[in-house]
Amino acid sequence: MKEYSVIGKPYPQRGSVQKATGRAKYIEDIYLPGMLYGKILRSPYAHAKIINIDTSEAEKLPGVMAVITGADIPKVQSEFLGPLGGADRYALAVGKVRFVGEEVATVAADDEDTAEEALELIQVEYEELPEVFDPEEAMKPDAPIIHERVGNNIAYEIHHSAGDIEKGFAEADYIREDRFETPMVQAAFIGPRGAVADYDPVIKKLTLYTEATMPFTSRGPLAQVLDMPVSNIRVIRPYIGGGFGEKSRVTIDVCFCASFLSMHLGRPVKIMHTRAEEFLTCAGRQPVVTYLKTGVMKDGTLVARQLTRISNTGASVGGSESYAKQDVGIFELLFRCPNTKFDSYSVYTNLTPSGTLRSLTNNALSFGIHSHMDMLARDLGVNVADFYLKNAHQQGDITHAQYKLDSCGLSECIQKVIEASKFKERQGKLGKGRGLGFATAGHTCGYKHRDWLPDLSTAEVLIDRDGNVRLLSGRAESGMGPGTMQIMCVAEELGIPPDDVDINEFVDTDITPFESGNYASRGTIQQGNAAMAAARNVRVQLFEVAAPALSTTPDNLEAKDSRIFIKGSPERGISFKEAVKAYEAAGKVLPLIGRGSYNPPTIAWNEHGEGNNSIAYGFGAQVIEVEVDNETGKVEVVDVVSAMDCGKVINPLILDGESEGAINMGIGMALLEQISYDEKGRMLGTSYTDYRLPTVWEQPSVKTMWVETIDPYGPYGAKGITETVGIPTALAIANAVYDAVGVRIRKLPITPDKILDGLREKETSK
Amino acid sequence: MKEYSVIGKPYPQRGSVQKATGRAKYIEDIYLPGMLYGKILRSPYAHAKIINIDTSEAEKLPGVMAVITGADIPKVQSEFLGPLGGADRYALAVGKVRFVGEEVATVAADDEDTAEEALELIQVEYEELPEVFDPEEAMKPDAPIIHERVGNNIAYEIHHSAGDIEKGFAEADYIREDRFETPMVQAAFIGPRGAVADYDPVIKKLTLYTEATMPFTSRGPLAQVLDMPVSNIRVIRPYIGGGFGEKSRVTIDVCFCASFLSMHLGRPVKIMHTRAEEFLTCAGRQPVVTYLKTGVMKDGTLVARQLTRISNTGASVGGSESYAKQDVGIFELLFRCPNTKFDSYSVYTNLTPSGTLRSLTNNALSFGIHSHMDMLARDLGVNVADFYLKNAHQQGDITHAQYKLDSCGLSECIQKVIEASKFKERQGKLGKGRGLGFATAGHTCGYKHRDWLPDLSTAEVLIDRDGNVRLLSGRAESGMGPGTMQIMCVAEELGIPPDDVDINEFVDTDITPFESGNYASRGTIQQGNAAMAAARNVRVQLFEVAAPALSTTPDNLEAKDSRIFIKGSPERGISFKEAVKAYEAAGKVLPLIGRGSYNPPTIAWNEHGEGNNSIAYGFGAQVIEVEVDNETGKVEVVDVVSAMDCGKVINPLILDGESEGAINMGIGMALLEQISYDEKGRMLGTSYTDYRLPTVWEQPSVKTMWVETIDPYGPYGAKGITETVGIPTALAIANAVYDAVGVRIRKLPITPDKILDGLREKETSK
Repeated sequence: MKEYSVIGKPYPQRGSVQKATGRAKYIEDIYLPGMLYGKILRSPYAHAKIINIDTSEAEKLPGVMAVITGADIPKVQSEFLGPLGGADRYALAVGKVRFVGEEVATVAADDEDTAEEALELIQVEYEELPEVFDPEEAMKPDAPIIHERVGNNIAYEIHHSAGDIEKGFAEADYIREDRFETPMVQAAFIGPRGAVADYDPVIKKLTLYTEATMPFTSRGPLAQVLDMPVSNIRVIRPYIGGGFGEKSRVTIDVCFCASFLSMHLGRPVKIMHTRAEEFLTCAGRQPVVTYLKTGVMKDGTLVARQLTRISNTGASVGGSESYAKQDVGIFELLFRCPNTKFDSYSVYTNLTPSGTLRSLTNNALSFGIHSHMDMLARDLGVNVADFYLKNAHQQGDITHAQYKLDSCGLSECIQKVIEASKFKERQGKLGKGRGLGFATAGHTCGYKHRDWLPDLSTAEVLIDRDGNVRLLSGRAESGMGPGTMQIMCVAEELGIPPDDVDINEFVDTDITPFESGNYASRGTIQQGNAAMAAARNVRVQLFEVAAPALSTTPDNLEAKDSRIFIKGSPERGISFKEAVKAYEAAGKVLPLIGRGSYNPPTIAWNEHGEGNNSIAYGFGAQVIEVEVDNETGKVEVVDVVSAMDCGKVINPLILDGESEGAINMGIGMALLEQISYDEKGRMLGTSYTDYRLPTVWEQPSVKTMWVETIDPYGPYGAKGITETVGIPTALAIANAVYDAVGVRIRKLPITPDKILDGLREKETSK
Repeated sequence: MKEYSVIGKPYPQRGSVQKATGRAKYIEDIYLPGMLYGKILRSPYAHAKIINIDTSEAEKLPGVMAVITGADIPKVQSEFLGPLGGADRYALAVGKVRFVGEEVATVAADDEDTAEEALELIQVEYEELPEVFDPEEAMKPDAPIIHERVGNNIAYEIHHSAGDIEKGFAEADYIREDRFETPMVQAAFIGPRGAVADYDPVIKKLTLYTEATMPFTSRGPLAQVLDMPVSNIRVIRPYIGGGFGEKSRVTIDVCFCASFLSMHLGRPVKIMHTRAEEFLTCAGRQPVVTYLKTGVMKDGTLVARQLTRISNTGASVGGSESYAKQDVGIFELLFRCPNTKFDSYSVYTNLTPSGTLRSLTNNALSFGIHSHMDMLARDLGVNVADFYLKNAHQQGDITHAQYKLDSCGLSECIQKVIEASKFKERQGKLGKGRGLGFATAGHTCGYKHRDWLPDLSTAEVLIDRDGNVRLLSGRAESGMGPGTMQIMCVAEELGIPPDDVDINEFVDTDITPFESGNYASRGTIQQGNAAMAAARNVRVQLFEVAAPALSTTPDNLEAKDSRIFIKGSPERGISFKEAVKAYEAAGKVLPLIGRGSYNPPTIAWNEHGEGNNSIAYGFGAQVIEVEVDNETGKVEVVDVVSAMDCGKVINPLILDGESEGAINMGIGMALLEQISYDEKGRMLGTSYTDYRLPTVWEQPSVKTMWVETIDPYGPYGAKGITETVGIPTALAIANAVYDAVGVRIRKLPITPDKILDGLREKETSK
């Protein structure tokens, strides 16, 4: 395997010390002269007509500068990428409200307290309407209609099939059917969302400081809703306190309301979510109900797989199309099977519009699949790992959904975890409330939204007169360290230490190079390739001036140890800085600039969710040991053995951190996290006191093994796996709980009461 | 003459509405979280030993975070471009103080009041030393020595000669000798200087928000004094409230002190000058004494010209080398003369270190030259304009100082103003206290500091997916509108309206392209050429994709009216936006980026001030009519007729504004501005109440005619004339005063008391 100087070696994430020492600037830290503070009035009803809004008293309050309602804004609904998603929502409610917390009016005032006081003075007259909260209820013909224009509550549906599902089931030796369910959860990032909008009425330009992980592409939906040209919007993105995909939705209430207020007043306006607003407005991953039916031969060969997916989009369709389409491919990503059928219904209810949270709905869907497969294996009397290995996709396979697996370490990951955990020897034999669970994962590394939309990363590497190397990147950091990864690629290509490479902290769409964004684990492949290309472009230019000085040709040179020298002869060379001087001496203009870009040859999904939408796919497997307390029903995760196909390890320090963090989140999904509502659709608990997250105390011992399949498209063979690493955790925990105490949990989270109920039921049925 | 779509047409300056409406962000408007406020303790003595500094009481004051004195900072003196100039000054005084206001200590505290209070608690023990304030006194052997290391008070001297000066005088029919003097004045910009320094101790990087008009190159001296690598300094430059060359000196007390404090504390620190500190620390243009001796033939031909220049640098040499070297060339720029001699002494005194103010010391030197020439003409009985025309340099001339006049409209400017003002017919004949004065100007358009330093402008033009055109420029706006000029160049080259071109507001050395800076009227030629080149680079790329679509070759295309079409056939084309789409459709990466740069073939001055240091030279002439009140001695400027060789008019709106503003400043120089000191070197008056500036009430009727000589190096033939336009004003006023009342003022400003003294003297000598 090729020897690298930088790639594969641990290197601390750039910016982490800034975060730890309080130097990093977040949206809260943005202060502009003359800045006003905004607040948002929200609906107390889950479903109600707005009869009248009287803002006159609020407007009279000293210090209040503007009150804006749905009547005052352009009636434009975003069509793409927005929270407004499929054009079913205005930035401020018009005519009716559809969930508790929906935005009804917004106020700008000299300070936050005045703005808050003004909200209380706004008189809104509502007429309550019947509500529906359960998606399967909402699909019934007599359910209250949430969006009249749609006519029913199906926000989005998609159907895909391959082979002949009926024939498959007919041929099967054994068929099993199950239903599973995941709850509404919250991304619960530590940094609440906020925005500072600064509209310049002279040049009609809006500068928006916000936390978008898609700063460039989010200008599109912003422009639609604000009814202004994309080029009149500048997004500046400071540090953010966590994103998990949910912050790719720049187009949320704070951005719109701050922008409308700033555009109205010609002054900067800041709006920050309170923690309660974070919960009320952004509920995180869609709850998913999965109906599974699988036909299998006696030897464990899958012959027919059917899945019906019903997801609760809440009051707005949001990104449901993306989530559902991705799940088509995810459904088929792990297993070969000739006959498949997938049907998905994203359903409107009167709950908070749901979004995404690290892997979209993959882990919700996969919870069903992996529980079901575990039960099937037990039914067949085969070891579940062998069952997986028998049916696992292999490198070179093309799935029915047209996913091309140019690299695929699924089987290797499975073998590694079952060997390391002695899974086969130990499963079912631990006793004392202990059990072992197994699960796998497959996920995309980026995705192409639309055929007409470039899925593009670009980077610039600049070398100044003193040899200083700067990387300009539009990547949006939210914890995974894409900038650090880019720095390492540049350092590797230029043969210099990564410490010698600077990178811009903030992203500024008016200045930093274009970048589609950080979502769908696309950073590593796309941004890594772009940075490599930019560095190589620089290297070519340096080699061209160094070659004559070394009496050789550029193709005979290499760059390493901060030197440029004749291949294989480090002594016959010049230093990197001397090469920069030679570049200048050759009459060329400094800074030397190299540009690189990467736009992968991927295909947007068709109407059936088919198409090689990601340039590569990450895979992994985990075996997890739990201990279940028979008395209290409490589940403790004792040990996690994980193996992940990351293509190639670029930075083990960050990868291990990613894995540990993702497993922690998986434990939260398995055991703790859910949002509950009362009978009127009001959220029960909107703080970290009520919404329990796993902490370091819940963290088990974790061993992560990295499988290097060297993907042909990835930089140095690497793939993005920030989502993949955490997917198996909740799934394996559920299976481990069954292994420990024989209780099968069909709806997450695995709370003590469910365990105790299950134990009681087992006792009764004996 | 070539027809342009944009060039030559009035276009409002970008950013001016922001300034007028209060939206523009200045250094005062920069707030960073956790920011502290700094203040600077200054010497009350003009010359004194520092015996002891006791900061203990100040440090104890609650809210004080740090107190720093000269003992705490690296003992590094900047060698180049700094206020520290020729390595004769530390950022905080060490050992002794040399002027009233010199920086002795700096304090950072939670707020400005606390910092101010802390200054009062610092105990400094001084031992007074004898002072000297007059440069000619300071040159005497027994004068107090200000810089012991130098040994005398000559900070910088330079000598240049051509031909044989003795022979010239021997041949002359007539010889005249005179002495003239200009006072210390202040740039007096409306925006006081300030800095916000934000040092990150983790990555050892300093971000400095300040008003530098040389944001990139000022990092060099900053790095020297702060003892850190250039690449660890990032300069961000917001709007500034006037510069006039004085803000090219980024390395002033606020920058250094804020940086030291921030580096010491690891927190952002802001220091703003009070208006008094503006006066105390930055006295503006060097006072200059000129001794002139000129030999002339009966027919008015100059045969020998000798000038001795003595300038008062104050307590630090500052940029004296530049000012004196430029004056070598300026001395010879207007007139042909075979024998010349120039000797200059920049002399230390115990006054505020003097700097520069629009044209360096050109107008101080030229005041002497033009008064002297006016007197010579009167002695010879020839009209002064004819006298000038007889000796004027012409296009193609190379001066003794090696200035190459590739374009030169001096004679044409003279002819235009004497015709328009009927100068010859009216001079000396107006009566009623009215008089007409004539003067000219020649100045550089940029200059090359050092042979090893690139004199470089670069620009990037980016085209986004929606066809939006963005110009990234490192130009530092301070009123002359270089960005607007660049926008017009880009619009012209791309055939689009200037409104369609965006430009970055702030300069950020980590992000915007390299730029040597805005000084010495270099913006138009260098930044204009860079912008043109970047736009042409974009155009080439667009033509390459448009040509196949139009079944032609790129060289057969032109861009105009937002279209790209076959030359001469506007109907056979596509829109600009369609071309951008074609570029993307051709599989090329957006944004489309074009880069351009300009680094002129100029030569740094040698030790005699010789070398073609500027790529072009601006010229002009003015005739001014004044009315002098015999009773009060008050001078009123009635009318100004100006003609300026700007090469080519790019934007008449800005040019006319430049001319009017510069003439207003010239009136200030002529009639109002001077800084006075008491016998202990303490400034008398440090506010706008004491220091009188001309206002709109002093503004006469101004007619400016533009002479287009189409310089071969300038963009579209244009030259920078922001300094040239104001030079003749004070000179012509002095000559007009003589024409009106027969009083010759040999030291500016022309105050009523000097007029009355002159009238009295005239009366007496009758």
